[in-house]
Amino acid sequence: MDTEQLADRIVAGDRRALARAITLVESSRADHRDRAVALIEALRAKTGKQAVRIGLSGTPGVGKSTFIESFGMMLLGRGLRVAVLAVDPSSARSGGSILGDKTRMERLSRERDAFIRPSPSRSHLGGVARRTREAVALCEAAGFDVVLIETVGVGQSETVVAEMSDIFVLLLAPAGGDELQGVKRGIMEMADLILVNKADGELKATATRTQADYAGALRLLRKRPQDPEGFPKAICVSALQEDGLERAWDEMRTLVDWRRETGHFDARRAAQARYWFGQEVRQALLAQLETGAARARMDELAEDVAGGRMTPTVAAQEMLDGLRGA
Amino acid sequence: MDTEQLADRIVAGDRRALARAITLVESSRADHRDRAVALIEALRAKTGKQAVRIGLSGTPGVGKSTFIESFGMMLLGRGLRVAVLAVDPSSARSGGSILGDKTRMERLSRERDAFIRPSPSRSHLGGVARRTREAVALCEAAGFDVVLIETVGVGQSETVVAEMSDIFVLLLAPAGGDELQGVKRGIMEMADLILVNKADGELKATATRTQADYAGALRLLRKRPQDPEGFPKAICVSALQEDGLERAWDEMRTLVDWRRETGHFDARRAAQARYWFGQEVRQALLAQLETGAARARMDELAEDVAGGRMTPTVAAQEMLDGLRGA
Repeated sequence: MDTEQLADRIVAGDRRALARAITLVESSRADHRDRAVALIEALRAKTGKQAVRIGLSGTPGVGKSTFIESFGMMLLGRGLRVAVLAVDPSSARSGGSILGDKTRMERLSRERDAFIRPSPSRSHLGGVARRTREAVALCEAAGFDVVLIETVGVGQSETVVAEMSDIFVLLLAPAGGDELQGVKRGIMEMADLILVNKADGELKATATRTQADYAGALRLLRKRPQDPEGFPKAICVSALQEDGLERAWDEMRTLVDWRRETGHFDARRAAQARYWFGQEVRQALLAQLETGAARARMDELAEDVAGGRMTPTVAAQEMLDGLRGA
Repeated sequence: MDTEQLADRIVAGDRRALARAITLVESSRADHRDRAVALIEALRAKTGKQAVRIGLSGTPGVGKSTFIESFGMMLLGRGLRVAVLAVDPSSARSGGSILGDKTRMERLSRERDAFIRPSPSRSHLGGVARRTREAVALCEAAGFDVVLIETVGVGQSETVVAEMSDIFVLLLAPAGGDELQGVKRGIMEMADLILVNKADGELKATATRTQADYAGALRLLRKRPQDPEGFPKAICVSALQEDGLERAWDEMRTLVDWRRETGHFDARRAAQARYWFGQEVRQALLAQLETGAARARMDELAEDVAGGRMTPTVAAQEMLDGLRGA
C-alpha cells in the first residue's frame, strides 16, 4: 500500500490503517521515517478537522485506567469517537507500557469508535514526544472527536503532554491536606481542570475536602488570559460509579468553546507548533554528535581534553570546524 | 602587550596582568575571544601547577563573605596564595554582583597574596561557566595555591561550580530541624564537606544540633568511591570568631591528599574536562540558531508551522538541510 492509499484509508476511518501508520511513525528506520513524514504531510492537506486534545496526568493509584474507560464510554454514548494515546518515558526501562495491556480498559477496547494505543518503548523522551505528536495528528485525520493523551507524572512527561494538548487535566486521589503540597507548583499552573477521583463510598468526604483544598489553591494562582471566569477549576468525580463524568466533559467543553471563540485555542496550537519545531531542530542538531564519524571524533577529542593535551574550548572549536567542513 | 608577554607576566604572578586576562576572557568580542583562547593555550604549556579548587555554595545570609574573608586570611597565614572567583547567574538580573563590592572582603582584598574577582554580568549561565572555568585556569597559571569558586544556591549554578571544583563545600546557617529539608537532595549528594557557620554566641547550641542533623543525613547517603572513610562530613565553624577554620582546611586537605593518592583527583579533573568539552560543543551548535541568517530562517519557518502550512517535522528538516548547505 502506498502512502496515498494509506492516507485515504485513515481518512475513511479504517482503524487498522491507523494502527499501521502509527507503527510507521514509531519506527526509527530511515525509510520508515521518510514515509511517515510524507504520510503526515499528505494528511495535513486532506483534513482540516480538529479533535479536542485532552492531556491527562495522574500518578499510579489515582484510578487513571478506570477513569479513561468510564470517561471514554460516556463520550461514546454521546456519539463521539475517542482515541487514547500514552506518553510514558518509563516504559522503556520497565520493559512494559502503561497501556500495554488492553484488558486495562476492557470495555473501551472492544468499542468500534474507540482506538487505544499503548506507549512505545523508546528511551528518549524527545522520541516519544515526536511519535505521540504525530500519532495525535493521525488520529485527528482519522476523524476522532476526542484524543486523550495520558501520562504518569514522571519528570518532564507532563510538560511534553501539556505542550501537545488543548486542555490539560490533572487526576488526583482523595488525600489529607498535607499531600496537597505533593503536587508541584509547576504542574498546578499547567492544569486547566483538576479532577479528584474516587469520590465514592468511604472516600467521598475526603474527596470533597481535597477538592475544596485544590479549589482554594487554584484561586491563589494568577489569572491566566486563556481562562474564562472560574477556571482553572477543581471538581469531584467517581470513575467507578460513573459519577461526575458528564459534568467534567461539560467543563472541558465550556473551556474549549470559550477558547475557540476568543482565539486562544488557535493561538495555543500555533505556539505549540512553534515550540515543537524549535525542539526538533535542536534535537536533530545535537543528534548528529551521537553517530558515525562525528561520534568518533567527539570521543577522540574528549580523550585529548581529558589527558590535558587540549583545552575544552580549543577542542570544541576543532569539533565545530570539522562539522562545518563535513 | 602580545599574548606571549601577557602569559609571562601572569606566570610571574603579576596580579594586574591576571585581571586584564580575565577581562579578556569575559569579553564577547570575537577578537578578544581569539586572544583569550590563545592565551589559555599558551599558559597550558607553561605551567603544570595544580591549585586546589574549592567550590563553595551558600544562600544569602549564611555569612559567606565573612567566611571567605576569615578562611582566606587563615590560608594566607599559612603561606598560601588565594584567589576568589564567583558564579552568580542572578547578577545580570540584579544589575550587581555578589562580589561587586570589594569592601565585602575588606581585609582580604588588601592582601598582596589574595586576588578577588567579582562575577561578570552575563545573563547566560553557559557564558558565566566558561568564563569562570577559564579564570580558574588563569589563576592556576598565576601560581595561586587555592582557588575558591563561590556561588549562591540559585538554579543550576551549584552544578556548574561543582563541575569545576576539586571539592565542593556547602556553607549553612544554624537552623531548626525542619529546615534540613530545605537543602535539596541533589545538593547534599554533591557536597564533600558541610560547614555549619555561626557556631558562636547564642547560636552555638543550634549550630551543634544542625551539624548533628546533617552528619546524620550524610550517613544515609550511599558511600561514594571518591571518599575516604568519614566523608562527606559536617562540621561547625564560626567565621566571625575565626573558629574551626583550620580544622575545615585540614579536612579539605585530607580529602584532597587521599584523592590525589588514589587517582580520584586526576580522574575527576579528566571527567570535568570531558564534560565541559561536550557542553561547549552543544552550546555552540545551538548558538548558531540564534544569529544572522539562521535566526531569520528559523523565524520564517516557525511562522509557516504556526500557520499550519508546514508540519514541525518537515520544517525542521528544511532548516537542517539549510544549515548543512550553508
